[in-house]
Amino acid sequence: MNENQNKSYRVAVAQFAPKRGDLEVNLQRMKGVVDKVECDLLVLPELTSTGYFFLDRDELRELSEEPETGKFCQWVRALSSSSSSVVVAGFSERSGDNLYNSALIALPNETYHIYRKTHLFYKEHLLFEPGDTGFFVVEWEGARIGTMICYDWRFPESARTLALLGADIIAHPSNLIAEKRLWGPTMQTRAFENKVIAATANRFGMEERNGEELIFSGESQIVDMNGSLLSEAGATENRVLIVSVDPIRTRDKSFNSYNDLFDDRRSEFYLP
Amino acid sequence: MNENQNKSYRVAVAQFAPKRGDLEVNLQRMKGVVDKVECDLLVLPELTSTGYFFLDRDELRELSEEPETGKFCQWVRALSSSSSSVVVAGFSERSGDNLYNSALIALPNETYHIYRKTHLFYKEHLLFEPGDTGFFVVEWEGARIGTMICYDWRFPESARTLALLGADIIAHPSNLIAEKRLWGPTMQTRAFENKVIAATANRFGMEERNGEELIFSGESQIVDMNGSLLSEAGATENRVLIVSVDPIRTRDKSFNSYNDLFDDRRSEFYLP
Repeated sequence: MNENQNKSYRVAVAQFAPKRGDLEVNLQRMKGVVDKVECDLLVLPELTSTGYFFLDRDELRELSEEPETGKFCQWVRALSSSSSSVVVAGFSERSGDNLYNSALIALPNETYHIYRKTHLFYKEHLLFEPGDTGFFVVEWEGARIGTMICYDWRFPESARTLALLGADIIAHPSNLIAEKRLWGPTMQTRAFENKVIAATANRFGMEERNGEELIFSGESQIVDMNGSLLSEAGATENRVLIVSVDPIRTRDKSFNSYNDLFDDRRSEFYLP
Repeated sequence: MNENQNKSYRVAVAQFAPKRGDLEVNLQRMKGVVDKVECDLLVLPELTSTGYFFLDRDELRELSEEPETGKFCQWVRALSSSSSSVVVAGFSERSGDNLYNSALIALPNETYHIYRKTHLFYKEHLLFEPGDTGFFVVEWEGARIGTMICYDWRFPESARTLALLGADIIAHPSNLIAEKRLWGPTMQTRAFENKVIAATANRFGMEERNGEELIFSGESQIVDMNGSLLSEAGATENRVLIVSVDPIRTRDKSFNSYNDLFDDRRSEFYLP
């Protein structure tokens, strides 16, 4: 098997700047960015359809969607089906009286899964329920995809749990305001310590509320299982990154004849 | 309280190149490096007294020590007592028929603790028993010190467990052959994700056995609780790094009014 055959799985992340509260504009912007992208996995940012900085649950509820019927979710599922790619996209999910900061994982066979963000960041606590789905892995055409959202990055347990569940690739929709010098190398560590591929789709742009400005750092990145940067976007550009990877190679966690990152774990000595 | 009063705790790491199998030479070299160092915590490398690359358990047994009676261990304890500093030093420990890749944590009151390396690297599997002490924290004069050895770095659970046990500072005796571009940023992540100070004392130099060469990467470093590099040695120099830190500040794990790195953990969703 030659190198090209090994690396035939295409991972894409899309970076753009949503307009807060305007689904139509965001759909148009998103369509413009991902138009004609050919890949096997496409990762969009966190809260793609709504923008980020809400302070009022009622205001956000109006913009939130049920995955089955929501317009944005339907578009994501149609994109997955028409492009034959798995699409992971962040959105504000409405479920009864609750709101969740969720990701839709849409499969080309028109099924989907919902991940609800486990670790809420900053004023998200005013809006969302903490996620109750936990971490899970979805397999499609031989690749195993785990999803975590934004601030989940800061907890090594998020990526570790996904890797232990068998993830080859971590899809990481984000609205990061942390500096790239912090989250970038940390996501490289997450890939390296778990021998997985990590694809962070970050948004860019600024949102202001009550005099407080949040600046989203862009610089989306895809990291290989050895922690090396495969591709990186600028801080303020609409951009799709696409790389070819070999998901299967992530499953051998050894790196010499004596050490295997998972077999070497000694969980009897770890605090939960 | 002013900034100087806050940062009154001095952490030192010593970097040198041991000679394999020659305790007398290594004691002389180590004394030369740490002579007259004034600090509150001094971290020496892994296997300081023996060198690293042994392939035969019987050969290493002769050089290994019981902590109570061993010449190197006695020197470390005397150094701690005479300098009024906690000293953490790696050595090959003999306990009955077993050998352990251990660290002596010597306190100025002439007591000591032994940490036995949890995760064994490469051909250490031919020599040592896997550590059975687990991770623990030692408090001395208001600072809480946790110890992990070399390859423990690669497992986020090591530093996480030490931090959850209350460590302010992670002492990290090492004989790293991994590239600095991998272990350096990862140790910065360990500090950042746990809000702890991390002091890695690495050796330098080369050892050869049966035609196989191991090159130790030097570049010892001390990292602040925000992940920033406080001090770093060159790749091949005898060197002591000393920084002043404030251990107490590591105990507040919050970083805004909504987020706290430990309170935010949701261990019900983490795989052990």
